[in-house]
Amino acid sequence: MDVHDLTRRLKEKSHSKIVLLVADGLGGLPMEPGGKTELETARHPNLDQLAERGTLGLLHPVLPGVTPGSGPGHLGIFGYDPLKYEIGRGALEATGVGFHLTENDVAVRGNYCTLDGDGNITDRRAGRIPTEESAPLAKRLNAVKIAGVELFVEPVKEHRFVLVMRGEGLGGNVLDTDPQSTGVPPLAPKATDPESRRTAEIASEFIAKAHEILKHEPKANGLTLRGFAPKPKLPSYEEVYGLRAAAIAVYPMYRGLAHLVGMTVLGHPQTFPEQVALLKESWEKYDFFFLHFKYTDSTGEDGNFEAKVKRIEELDAAIPEIAALDPSVLVVTADHSTPSKLKSHSWHPVPVLLSSETCRPDTCRSFTENAATLGGLGHFEAKYLMLLALAHAGRLAKYGA
Amino acid sequence: MDVHDLTRRLKEKSHSKIVLLVADGLGGLPMEPGGKTELETARHPNLDQLAERGTLGLLHPVLPGVTPGSGPGHLGIFGYDPLKYEIGRGALEATGVGFHLTENDVAVRGNYCTLDGDGNITDRRAGRIPTEESAPLAKRLNAVKIAGVELFVEPVKEHRFVLVMRGEGLGGNVLDTDPQSTGVPPLAPKATDPESRRTAEIASEFIAKAHEILKHEPKANGLTLRGFAPKPKLPSYEEVYGLRAAAIAVYPMYRGLAHLVGMTVLGHPQTFPEQVALLKESWEKYDFFFLHFKYTDSTGEDGNFEAKVKRIEELDAAIPEIAALDPSVLVVTADHSTPSKLKSHSWHPVPVLLSSETCRPDTCRSFTENAATLGGLGHFEAKYLMLLALAHAGRLAKYGA
Repeated sequence: MDVHDLTRRLKEKSHSKIVLLVADGLGGLPMEPGGKTELETARHPNLDQLAERGTLGLLHPVLPGVTPGSGPGHLGIFGYDPLKYEIGRGALEATGVGFHLTENDVAVRGNYCTLDGDGNITDRRAGRIPTEESAPLAKRLNAVKIAGVELFVEPVKEHRFVLVMRGEGLGGNVLDTDPQSTGVPPLAPKATDPESRRTAEIASEFIAKAHEILKHEPKANGLTLRGFAPKPKLPSYEEVYGLRAAAIAVYPMYRGLAHLVGMTVLGHPQTFPEQVALLKESWEKYDFFFLHFKYTDSTGEDGNFEAKVKRIEELDAAIPEIAALDPSVLVVTADHSTPSKLKSHSWHPVPVLLSSETCRPDTCRSFTENAATLGGLGHFEAKYLMLLALAHAGRLAKYGA
Repeated sequence: MDVHDLTRRLKEKSHSKIVLLVADGLGGLPMEPGGKTELETARHPNLDQLAERGTLGLLHPVLPGVTPGSGPGHLGIFGYDPLKYEIGRGALEATGVGFHLTENDVAVRGNYCTLDGDGNITDRRAGRIPTEESAPLAKRLNAVKIAGVELFVEPVKEHRFVLVMRGEGLGGNVLDTDPQSTGVPPLAPKATDPESRRTAEIASEFIAKAHEILKHEPKANGLTLRGFAPKPKLPSYEEVYGLRAAAIAVYPMYRGLAHLVGMTVLGHPQTFPEQVALLKESWEKYDFFFLHFKYTDSTGEDGNFEAKVKRIEELDAAIPEIAALDPSVLVVTADHSTPSKLKSHSWHPVPVLLSSETCRPDTCRSFTENAATLGGLGHFEAKYLMLLALAHAGRLAKYGA
């Protein structure tokens, strides 16, 4: 049985509030054998106090050994089985630039490329042109019009852009036009099912008109399209949990992911203190708050152990302000580990801390990976986290009589 | 989603090496309340050193409480869901005598029996005739020829043998001919689906011709057939993990199981030092090595606690030689527990130790069941072990963007 088949049946009304604080990439590793992780090195008295009152555990974002991208990492802690729900590459790219997809959209990742006089690709990434040069191109491509369909072109970094086609009955099963090699022309878009034929036709027409617009560009005089994908069919937080959910995030990717599961994306905060201020302002209007702290991931990706430690201490300093709102359930966890040692996402399980009045205390007195290893929540797949949050919030009825 | 659907998608090339050292039946129990297990009693400084640097956990070979045979026990740690893949009894028996089954084979377990003048069974096991008497009979039965099919008869212990039929389109769904009682004749082979009719006909013809050959035997003048089974359809290590895998085992059963998942079975070692020597010689040629240490199981089966302790110490002494090869990932675990106290396989979870440079250290300082209970890997189903090994070996790409 899917987790949501259960929550749909058991969800109950309540005035309780749940805060899910996601410290992106929080889990870490020691830099040297015998050393400490970032979380073990940082001083975080407020998180430790929560740990003492609450219950700890370790989460597998997907399965033991599986490193998730941001999409599956967040779907898991949102309670969506990341092996059941997949977000296509085009849809994730659109989400990442903050584009809100609708049911009628097919999104595609685009690359500018360089074509020679015969139309063959000489550079698949158009010399990795800088964003300052590529962003205006996206604006110009927005001039392309095709009858019966709306088109949106959004700039991404360097040689990348996103194309969204909006119209009735557009299938998402179209093959990439990137031939993955140079000296040959881009491939024509090809549908792999009848429902996607119209999508392929629109893509062909777009490419022809775009090439006309780009033909005098020195580097970016062509383009390829990859990862055609419709909006993923994710049931909403309201429907599966009965929660009025809000997301408070700075970066477009996480705002987009929250939007995909039906959360209301609040304001345009630029810093964590602004996020916390927004949380306070919106406290009465929602049942559930997803609060995203990006900086533990970005410092980990940079391989900057000391900076990650500092960011953890910064997060810790904000805890009293959040706890003062007296949420029924406060969960602090991560979507995946990003050890500074590896400079990338990793498969290592992430610590989770759940604080509520109904916690059974465990032996944990601090919030660290090693403490969490022995925590009362045990080790479990992230997709079960929302069941625990709902239960402690008094929002999950008894199963069976 | 099956684990292999994931590994097929995410597997990556690497020059890393993985060693899976299986100490068969390693998990144990104290003989007396308040006592220690075999692993807790043995001195194993080298394994303890690995434990200090690596991460520990407990594996459920199948599910909590389920005692596996050698087949499911190994399938689990090889990463094959033992509840999805079943090895039919005939196929396991053939595997156990080192017979390499092909796609066109159906294997059956045979028992010699004693028939009276009316053809009724008087002894279902032919007085458990000794192997010295039964082995020559298998050789004689190899003289049986049937048009359109190849037959192989292999001796097993005492009153047992294996029959393999090789031919096109032979189904494996034929009922046992052993009536499970005396005073009645053996049953005729009966197919339960159209695809297995030809198999049943061949079996009938084999029985008639075999009875002719055996008719003057004082005890073994008849036979019954049980557990008809084709070669199990197991995807190969190469296909699901992208690993060139080698098996180094003394006993036919484990050599056979490794062969079934597409490992190359190396040499004919007779002792563990010979196995380790073979590992060194073959180091450059493979990505993955399954090294099987039998003696922790056989001493456990004998109920010989002291002998099992000694065997563990013998294993420990070989660890530095293996570690000196500097594998990217060294896993030490078992296919199941074989507590001397029970003199049999058991359901108790088995300790697992994973050592690599990307381990998150836990609090474990020794390799024992009790330390493993608190280890950083937690308690998990054996089928996930290969995901962890691949991740630590840098052979598993990120899931989703």
